[in-house]
Amino acid sequence: MAAGSVAGAAAAQQADPLITELQDWASYTGVGVDEVPYGMPIEFEKHVVRRNVEWLTASPISSINFTPIHALDGTITPQGCAFERHHSGAIELRKEDYRLMINGLVEEPLVFTYEDIERLPRENHVYFCECAANTGMEWAGAQLNGVQFTHGMIHNMEYTGVPLRTLLKAVGADMSPDKWVYVEGADASSNGRSIPMEKALDDVLVAFKANGEALRMEHGYPVRLVVPGWEGNMWVKWLRRIEITDMAVESREETSKYTDVLEDGTARKWTWVMDAKSVITSPSPQMPITHGPGQMVISGLAWSGHGQITRVDVSKDGGISWETARLGKQGDTKALTRFYLDTEWDGAPMLLQARAMDDTGYVQPTKEQLRAERGENSVYHNNCIQTWYVNAEGIAENVEVS
Amino acid sequence: MAAGSVAGAAAAQQADPLITELQDWASYTGVGVDEVPYGMPIEFEKHVVRRNVEWLTASPISSINFTPIHALDGTITPQGCAFERHHSGAIELRKEDYRLMINGLVEEPLVFTYEDIERLPRENHVYFCECAANTGMEWAGAQLNGVQFTHGMIHNMEYTGVPLRTLLKAVGADMSPDKWVYVEGADASSNGRSIPMEKALDDVLVAFKANGEALRMEHGYPVRLVVPGWEGNMWVKWLRRIEITDMAVESREETSKYTDVLEDGTARKWTWVMDAKSVITSPSPQMPITHGPGQMVISGLAWSGHGQITRVDVSKDGGISWETARLGKQGDTKALTRFYLDTEWDGAPMLLQARAMDDTGYVQPTKEQLRAERGENSVYHNNCIQTWYVNAEGIAENVEVS
Repeated sequence: MAAGSVAGAAAAQQADPLITELQDWASYTGVGVDEVPYGMPIEFEKHVVRRNVEWLTASPISSINFTPIHALDGTITPQGCAFERHHSGAIELRKEDYRLMINGLVEEPLVFTYEDIERLPRENHVYFCECAANTGMEWAGAQLNGVQFTHGMIHNMEYTGVPLRTLLKAVGADMSPDKWVYVEGADASSNGRSIPMEKALDDVLVAFKANGEALRMEHGYPVRLVVPGWEGNMWVKWLRRIEITDMAVESREETSKYTDVLEDGTARKWTWVMDAKSVITSPSPQMPITHGPGQMVISGLAWSGHGQITRVDVSKDGGISWETARLGKQGDTKALTRFYLDTEWDGAPMLLQARAMDDTGYVQPTKEQLRAERGENSVYHNNCIQTWYVNAEGIAENVEVS
Repeated sequence: MAAGSVAGAAAAQQADPLITELQDWASYTGVGVDEVPYGMPIEFEKHVVRRNVEWLTASPISSINFTPIHALDGTITPQGCAFERHHSGAIELRKEDYRLMINGLVEEPLVFTYEDIERLPRENHVYFCECAANTGMEWAGAQLNGVQFTHGMIHNMEYTGVPLRTLLKAVGADMSPDKWVYVEGADASSNGRSIPMEKALDDVLVAFKANGEALRMEHGYPVRLVVPGWEGNMWVKWLRRIEITDMAVESREETSKYTDVLEDGTARKWTWVMDAKSVITSPSPQMPITHGPGQMVISGLAWSGHGQITRVDVSKDGGISWETARLGKQGDTKALTRFYLDTEWDGAPMLLQARAMDDTGYVQPTKEQLRAERGENSVYHNNCIQTWYVNAEGIAENVEVS
């Protein structure tokens, strides 16, 4: 690349007081950080926080907030700004008071303390956790003007935990393929879900660390379930009981909630897996293009509850033509993958879209394709292609194309 | 595994009020977390913070603190508790005021704004950053009774940044193999280091995100250098200038500091790479065994500035016999690798050690081997095998074995 052709970089000979003058920060001794045992984001980044949507989350008791994915890069979500959904608030449960009972079809029901769990062989894996309702408001049209709100019910962390199968073996559980594992939280909502034995024996973790440290209170401290690739409400927080059963429990959260009402009034049930999905995080309504035409990076996230993301395509013309994006690094299975399209902007308006593919061969559908199959009554499992209209000033807006 | 044989798990029929009685946290609606836009660790984990050692860090201006690695698991270090070293405090530098000048042996000196850098193709990589002085106090004997203090000048994060080579190409730098790249920070210390061209063109990043979000102030917000596998002081924070030079600058931080004085008074210079190293984080002096004999997990961290960790061995008898540990997952190159030894404790005292090997075939040395080669005048680059004495009560202590 020839000198001077890069982005907007200026020739150094142009006098810029930020270069030529002595700056304050180079002439004083800065903030002593020894007094900051736990570092918070700098004040200039105070807008990069979880947010809610008031009309969507009227009750502080049963609520949801959104990860600021528009302002993040890479793949890891810090716990502090990772979205969370609760059904009866976040509880303060000490490790010393923590108990996990495993009962039902077992040789011997057992109660595990936190320390008991820590004595068992544990593993580390990065997984995404997505709320089934992520992008749910968009079934009815382009509603929320920000990727934080349309796609921010997702986070991606490195979990440390004990495989659920280790605990099932420890109690001598009946692990026949037709059995179910009912998992229940210790909070007042008693959020409970039924998990088929095959999944329980596969990759489910009883987890106590995320990104190296203890879980945040709002993420289920001290112990939560991690159900890789499956909808977030199954990742039961403050896990207190596991029961091996002959049949699914058909609890509230898997019947009246978290089922998908179709056009004809019937409901899809047991829609556990989060299908492949992607979205452009920058530019997006909260992240306009602030420079003129020329070199730029279009970036976003892709994920699949079925496995690895193998390819992401980006369109600038609403899905007529596509370019294959570069993956930031080969993603882990059931984890967020970052993609980049290194490109030139000619300054003309764009209709930006991203389309993910996973290693099962699945291709992320358009909103039209999804509506044709599922109607418009659904709230959950909207994994359609998202469109941002970017005008000549670089301002982005949530739109639909047909 | 037969029921009842696991760890200390109790048979569920024993009446435990934490199981049989209705608990407070199951009968109230918990904390409304909508008012917590950025979640902090729960109050019960308030001890898991960066700490300093008063006699070691008397000056708040030039100081160091330590990651609480004893209490972490997995591999990622959250920014909030990731150690940092500063030479003149942490500065508050806005993105709008950020400038990076590249001059010296270039076709055209250029000044980049923050936005200019964001327009260039970027990458994501997890790397460890270790201070050259990590474990430095231990040259003189077993001194600091906690792995946070003996080995906590290290962190491991997912960085997002532009390869340095991209910027060097943009200014038309002379990239001949005998040239050097001098990098300098914007704070009052003007911390500066010389990097050989080969490394500069290899894997060095001009980074602006760590674990997805903006860098913390104390980690160099808005832009720092990432020099994978090389000592932490070269990871210049608040990066303001890059100069292409014919020779190394021989700055203060690479002559009077960060060189290793040997037994005969001469000094090793350009000791950039952090050699393979490992340490057991639990049990350790800050993490005693709190349960009786039986099933337990011995866990720790391993890393190598030369590449990947291929194997970690653990000894319970001060290096006489060794068992190969399980790696939590195959580590990235120049990144922390978590290891576990799933084992039984017979209740007898142990002399715990870990020994790392990397993909160059290098084996972590004993303290005796290291002293035989380097004497005891050094402060830097102590990567010797660490020993914890664990007594029959499970209390651990920093000791040396010979």
